[in-house]
Amino acid sequence: MKPLGFISNPDNPAGRRFDLGILVVILYSIVTFSIETIPDLSFEIQSFLETSEAVVTVLFTIEYALRLITAPSPLRYAFSFYGLIDLLAIAPFYLMSGIDMRALRAVRLFRIFRILKLARYSKAIRRFGKAIAIAKEEIVLFMLAALLLIYLAAVGIYYFEHDAQPDRFQSIFHCLWWAVVTLTTVGYGDVFPVTTGGKIFTFIVLAAGLGIVAVPTGLIASALTKVRENEDQI
Amino acid sequence: MKPLGFISNPDNPAGRRFDLGILVVILYSIVTFSIETIPDLSFEIQSFLETSEAVVTVLFTIEYALRLITAPSPLRYAFSFYGLIDLLAIAPFYLMSGIDMRALRAVRLFRIFRILKLARYSKAIRRFGKAIAIAKEEIVLFMLAALLLIYLAAVGIYYFEHDAQPDRFQSIFHCLWWAVVTLTTVGYGDVFPVTTGGKIFTFIVLAAGLGIVAVPTGLIASALTKVRENEDQI
Amino acid sequence: MKPLGFISNPDNPAGRRFDLGILVVILYSIVTFSIETIPDLSFEIQSFLETSEAVVTVLFTIEYALRLITAPSPLRYAFSFYGLIDLLAIAPFYLMSGIDMRALRAVRLFRIFRILKLARYSKAIRRFGKAIAIAKEEIVLFMLAALLLIYLAAVGIYYFEHDAQPDRFQSIFHCLWWAVVTLTTVGYGDVFPVTTGGKIFTFIVLAAGLGIVAVPTGLIASALTKVRENEDQI
Amino acid sequence: MKPLGFISNPDNPAGRRFDLGILVVILYSIVTFSIETIPDLSFEIQSFLETSEAVVTVLFTIEYALRLITAPSPLRYAFSFYGLIDLLAIAPFYLMSGIDMRALRAVRLFRIFRILKLARYSKAIRRFGKAIAIAKEEIVLFMLAALLLIYLAAVGIYYFEHDAQPDRFQSIFHCLWWAVVTLTTVGYGDVFPVTTGGKIFTFIVLAAGLGIVAVPTGLIASALTKVRENEDQI
Repeated sequence: MKPLGFISNPDNPAGRRFDLGILVVILYSIVTFSIETIPDLSFEIQSFLETSEAVVTVLFTIEYALRLITAPSPLRYAFSFYGLIDLLAIAPFYLMSGIDMRALRAVRLFRIFRILKLARYSKAIRRFGKAIAIAKEEIVLFMLAALLLIYLAAVGIYYFEHDAQPDRFQSIFHCLWWAVVTLTTVGYGDVFPVTTGGKIFTFIVLAAGLGIVAVPTGLIASALTKVRENEDQI
Repeated sequence: MKPLGFISNPDNPAGRRFDLGILVVILYSIVTFSIETIPDLSFEIQSFLETSEAVVTVLFTIEYALRLITAPSPLRYAFSFYGLIDLLAIAPFYLMSGIDMRALRAVRLFRIFRILKLARYSKAIRRFGKAIAIAKEEIVLFMLAALLLIYLAAVGIYYFEHDAQPDRFQSIFHCLWWAVVTLTTVGYGDVFPVTTGGKIFTFIVLAAGLGIVAVPTGLIASALTKVRENEDQI
Repeated sequence: MKPLGFISNPDNPAGRRFDLGILVVILYSIVTFSIETIPDLSFEIQSFLETSEAVVTVLFTIEYALRLITAPSPLRYAFSFYGLIDLLAIAPFYLMSGIDMRALRAVRLFRIFRILKLARYSKAIRRFGKAIAIAKEEIVLFMLAALLLIYLAAVGIYYFEHDAQPDRFQSIFHCLWWAVVTLTTVGYGDVFPVTTGGKIFTFIVLAAGLGIVAVPTGLIASALTKVRENEDQI
Repeated sequence: MKPLGFISNPDNPAGRRFDLGILVVILYSIVTFSIETIPDLSFEIQSFLETSEAVVTVLFTIEYALRLITAPSPLRYAFSFYGLIDLLAIAPFYLMSGIDMRALRAVRLFRIFRILKLARYSKAIRRFGKAIAIAKEEIVLFMLAALLLIYLAAVGIYYFEHDAQPDRFQSIFHCLWWAVVTLTTVGYGDVFPVTTGGKIFTFIVLAAGLGIVAVPTGLIASALTKVRENEDQI
């Protein structure tokens, strides 16, 4: 298995070239997948995209086979996170035949898992993971606090706005959508309070809530700074 | 009182199971309460929700009684923050009978206090409380500065936009709504300046104000980081 | 001048009560000023507000006189920042007579300066000032960078959207409004790109610009943390 | 070359005055350039702007010539970043003759490069550059994570909203626009989910994504704080 030893070995020039090649194919397949969703494509483009899809799948299948063969423990690779993603990236193509066309389109979306392979090629997730681990407790607790606040905001706005806008603030579930859009400050403008009580309540919710929703970001940033500092000291 | 000693004692396996059971019932009651607000529910669902509500209330009443009995000082528990919330979580159900239906619906909203019991089960509030205590002074001062800025922004925009949009910028109170929505960057799009002066003023207000509104978040994040560091040192 | 020595001396119980009384009057005058802008007020309310305005002005005039008398150097006080604000808070009332009614309303807005007197009563501005002084250089530079970015964004979007939406992206000045609303993430929804080029350009501008616009906030937060730490060490 | 030695030498009083003069001319030319884009200008204003443009170009040409002459190595200056920008700031004017009027207007936009000369006059970019260098790795990685998230969000929302709103969520490219506007919390309100699935998906994307998009800002702020601290220690 020495001749294929360069696979999954980014320290080796051949391994780097192999990884880069795969990365290019992944990016190419993401772009063609996106183009496929454009409505009313000409027949030429559609048939080109289909051929292109077949070629990409063959390339990914070969890659999957190589990784399986060269892995120290093929079984462990097959059931590892990346092994499963590598499989999901090619499975939809082979499962397509004999299934009705509409359901098929949904299955095709699974091809998206191909992108997650990108994760293999960057250190981003590793460092991010460390930072998350440091601030994990606070992030979880703030997420809970944010969820509680979103729920209380939804109940409150239901009380204030339901009578004035029965269509938009129909039930607490509709109000939850308002709470999410408001507390993240996205504010599409599809739902907003119109009563004086609702507006004052929105102000109070925002005053209390902006911090709770935004604090985890600050915590991750400071945790990342710490991870880097610790690495510098070693 | 030894046989019920596990209540309010999360260090004990039986106490943990009890707390977890209560947590599940609270979450279940939050979901059913939310479903009740959906309009035009079928009669079957409505009657199921009513039965479910009765059962949940009985469970919470038993829990309240147990906590009262097992508390070292029942009176102190009854008037503590959580004791009052526990009572408010069950009181609306018993007070329902004999009151007109519409007022009743408002009273039902008090059932929401049940959620606050969640607070008992997490360390979130305690840590958050410590961080708030550290940065308390600055947070209060920034809140005041934000309020002052919101008011001045409202007065300014009233001057610029009242003549152009007398409906939307009717009075300073209407302008306060605009100031809140703008300075929190929610920006629903229901009110926005249309005059050149109003737009330039909005720019100035945002330049001065974004910092003031967002700084408390950064203060809480850095205070939380400090609380954790201090705990690590001990 | 000993008998009035308590004025401007918040360390003295009488001085604290005097300051608190003035604060209450200021808040009262802010509320009545805001109510005056509500259209179609009944005659009774209007005449009450006018009387109330006269009383408040008399109180502020007495306060101004007392401060002038008790100041170590009356002239220095009269031309200090707070001295001028104290004067501006009462001047509009006395200047009102004999001027046409519409212009007068604009003059009335100067009464808003009364609020700035609030500044005298809190340590907020002092601490904030220190933090600003520490991070001054960076804040100024980031403000300049933000202005440059806003201008370049406006020119770019003019190029992309002017032909598609000649009404909304009429000139670079109209585009500046879009740039401000977008880079502060307010996003009212009154102007937004519709062309593919404009949307890609918006993405690039946001990717480059969010940091530039939001960084000063982080700088102020960290500077404030430092100010507090330095104070703790003394 | 001694007599013109003050050019590009801001430590010298004559050099500072020269730089300040150029700065004023640049700002003046930015304002007139912006005014030119206002539609339906009177003939007088238009001819004034044309003359003004000619004068400014002559001034910039003289400046360019002086810089070229006084540079230790004229060739190196001519091909340096600022040398090229200085050239681009005057080139459009001389290339204007003999080209059709509409294309010409697009060429004129290049005059915008004049503003970039502002960079020469401030230390902003240098400090910012240092901070970027410190946090470079994390910023790049977070940018990649943000891009990945935006793409996955677009694919997801396409799945949920395409059938309900075929016009607004036509293809993944249209959905990318939604993802950018939502994750930056701009939220214009031109595209937003209407299905329950799409709304829940939006909530999940925002919960996961706000941090990823906003963290780089925090990293830059903490890096800048570090740059300043290091400078203070020297």
